[in-house]
Amino acid sequence: MATDKAFDYIDQNKERFLEELNEFLRFPSISAQSDHNKDVLACGGWLKDHLANLGLEAGIIETEGKPIVWARGRGRSSKKVIFYGHYDVQPVDPLEEWRTPPFEPTVKDGYIYGRGTTDDKGQFFAHVKAVESLLKAEGELPCEVLFLVEGEEESNGEALADYIKENKVELASRAVGVVVSDSSMYDERTPAITYALRGVVPLEVTVKGPSCDLHSGQYGGAIGNPAIALAHIISECVGIDGKVKIKGFYDDVRKLEDWERENVKKLNYQDSSLKNQVGVKNLFGEKEFATLERLWARPTFEVNGIFGGYMGEGGKTIIPARATAKITMRLVPNMDLKKTAELAKGHIRAVCPDFVELEITGGDAGANAVIFDKNNELIKAGVEALKKGFGSEAVYIGCGGSIPVTLTFWEELKKPILLMGLGQDSDGAHSPNERFLISSFINGAKASAYLLNSI
Amino acid sequence: MATDKAFDYIDQNKERFLEELNEFLRFPSISAQSDHNKDVLACGGWLKDHLANLGLEAGIIETEGKPIVWARGRGRSSKKVIFYGHYDVQPVDPLEEWRTPPFEPTVKDGYIYGRGTTDDKGQFFAHVKAVESLLKAEGELPCEVLFLVEGEEESNGEALADYIKENKVELASRAVGVVVSDSSMYDERTPAITYALRGVVPLEVTVKGPSCDLHSGQYGGAIGNPAIALAHIISECVGIDGKVKIKGFYDDVRKLEDWERENVKKLNYQDSSLKNQVGVKNLFGEKEFATLERLWARPTFEVNGIFGGYMGEGGKTIIPARATAKITMRLVPNMDLKKTAELAKGHIRAVCPDFVELEITGGDAGANAVIFDKNNELIKAGVEALKKGFGSEAVYIGCGGSIPVTLTFWEELKKPILLMGLGQDSDGAHSPNERFLISSFINGAKASAYLLNSI
Repeated sequence: MATDKAFDYIDQNKERFLEELNEFLRFPSISAQSDHNKDVLACGGWLKDHLANLGLEAGIIETEGKPIVWARGRGRSSKKVIFYGHYDVQPVDPLEEWRTPPFEPTVKDGYIYGRGTTDDKGQFFAHVKAVESLLKAEGELPCEVLFLVEGEEESNGEALADYIKENKVELASRAVGVVVSDSSMYDERTPAITYALRGVVPLEVTVKGPSCDLHSGQYGGAIGNPAIALAHIISECVGIDGKVKIKGFYDDVRKLEDWERENVKKLNYQDSSLKNQVGVKNLFGEKEFATLERLWARPTFEVNGIFGGYMGEGGKTIIPARATAKITMRLVPNMDLKKTAELAKGHIRAVCPDFVELEITGGDAGANAVIFDKNNELIKAGVEALKKGFGSEAVYIGCGGSIPVTLTFWEELKKPILLMGLGQDSDGAHSPNERFLISSFINGAKASAYLLNSI
Repeated sequence: MATDKAFDYIDQNKERFLEELNEFLRFPSISAQSDHNKDVLACGGWLKDHLANLGLEAGIIETEGKPIVWARGRGRSSKKVIFYGHYDVQPVDPLEEWRTPPFEPTVKDGYIYGRGTTDDKGQFFAHVKAVESLLKAEGELPCEVLFLVEGEEESNGEALADYIKENKVELASRAVGVVVSDSSMYDERTPAITYALRGVVPLEVTVKGPSCDLHSGQYGGAIGNPAIALAHIISECVGIDGKVKIKGFYDDVRKLEDWERENVKKLNYQDSSLKNQVGVKNLFGEKEFATLERLWARPTFEVNGIFGGYMGEGGKTIIPARATAKITMRLVPNMDLKKTAELAKGHIRAVCPDFVELEITGGDAGANAVIFDKNNELIKAGVEALKKGFGSEAVYIGCGGSIPVTLTFWEELKKPILLMGLGQDSDGAHSPNERFLISSFINGAKASAYLLNSI
């Protein structure tokens, strides 16, 4: 069988594949930090050259944001598979918590450690190596392949979305669908197809009190404290039972279908392993939903950051002039991001004490949730490909995060999306010591090669 | 009357007094910054020499911290008045906000501008000039005078407190009481006796969630958010109506006496001026208490600083690993700082959600509130002296802040304390462009001379 040759090629070249991945990982392509602009550009340039060197037609699309890297290879059939990826990465702070330097990839216990290993350089690069393997081992590709790789996924850039919208007819033409590997397997051994993604919408809330920090002895009791006002606002938005208190927040929430609740039961998820993984004694959230249901199918209100007043060593007896919370809400299917943001803004205005001024930004951009029909042909092919690549059955899972571009592809191209995550939830995608299982990199490349051969 | 001569002397020499104050002010004696150690020592040395040159016995007491400057002058009676002061000053940052250099005293519109003008060199120096005037104009002091001037008030040094404790018998012997001018007049024209000071006790609360920052999409809904937990804790400790919710917090709170509520009414304080001064639209606090009552006689719970998670530009979709609040509670008479701290800790533990771990530090040190009997002889003499010095009636005021050394004198010597503030709240004691009204310096010297003559 044709795929056997590609599998052999992958096995024979995996050391080199890993070395090339290391090269890719060494670029500190942090798109959210402007002092890394050059690194982002250099990383995109390296990737374009790498794709061209495989014999693909490759190029760079300049945008108002970071450039998009693309590459195309024609194949035996005119059917087209689009592979999405992103070459930018998250910031690295807190740097002091990294056990190895984030941009010096380090192998340990079967994992490769470094920023971008799982999110998304490592996952995406498996598809690049699949295409190389088919080209080298079989002499040609079984179908047309198009890579579209953006450089601003981690900074919420709009360049790729704009490109997709502008070129949707051409992109959709002959396309079987879009393959995205920027999510997770079910566990270390069990590959998975992600059929549902939560959406997200961010807000930044600043409360302003006195025009400068005041002495808390001289003024305390008469001048309101912005940090206390902010704490009050947050408490009025979400309870410690996990229930969001924003009026109307749950009105549009999609109910879980029977097969989904059955699916979650069958997966037999162990809360204890999650607790151990992240180091908490107790989980959090709505009691009437199982953990996986809460993670995949329930909306949330999170404070991503909070700050105000004196944050140094020791104490300083002040009433802070202001305090800020960075907030994101996770959305599930049928919720609209702008409507939800407006509900939140209205609620925050309503509960904000009158002794502070309120400033809210954000809420006009983000991503709605998305859910795919697991019965479409691309997803079925993906299930089979993962089984061949990993040697074990794939399961259906949801994903608590959002991949906004997935939604754009889906809405604009109206073609199936195959989310075959090669990472793991425990990889620490946005945390120190991010990692990626090397065997998943290799098995992912095999699955991808098998998938292309089965189109 | 004997005092007339001293008053004449003060009027005739006020230009020189101001020049000498300028010399004192030019030392950048910032005790909290070790690169100013030499300046602190030089300033103390200058002060000792200045006091000795007036004909007083003077010296320097070396301590583990900054030296204490002392000076003694015998008088007609063996009664002793102790004058407290501090020759160190606050740091000057933000330096760019100063309109004139902080250590080049500058006169404008009847004020002298510079670091330490009101806090505390200018206020204290008025007493030095009072003693000089009595010595020069009347040939001798009416009673014994002891100056105790510390060099680490602004860096929370313990040297003077230790000295007072070790020498309390000698200090208390023949003492009428202690005079402290390190607070405020009621307004620019109205001198005041501060009869009550609030206490303070700090706590630092950290809530710990997952062992590192987590992706809020991947984990949100199952892993609790420490920033939300902290917001909940704060909201459960204090309401936006100003009521502290800690169980038992108000149990020991001293009730305002009738004369105090009358006193506040008579002062006819204008909330609008406070709003304008600090730039807020609405004041804060317990509705059933007037603003001055809340500031002087009601305890508070303040968040001086709050931080956790991502605080940079843009957003980062994380569940923070931890969040911290720096808290101080202001105390009023009859509240015990340690008891209050224990109540707060117990309450915080009780309301802390089970999905985070709690760490609380502090609560074992601070200052209790203090209140003085306005009917004691020293305070009565102070009222009369201020009237003579300033030419207008003195009023009784409280102070929302604490002056820990006052409490030490009071507890150790068991003698009356006279807080005759010569500064104003608007002087900017710890801010850029600190200032001191020159007429208050002169009138303060007169009041002090009158006071000594009336002992």
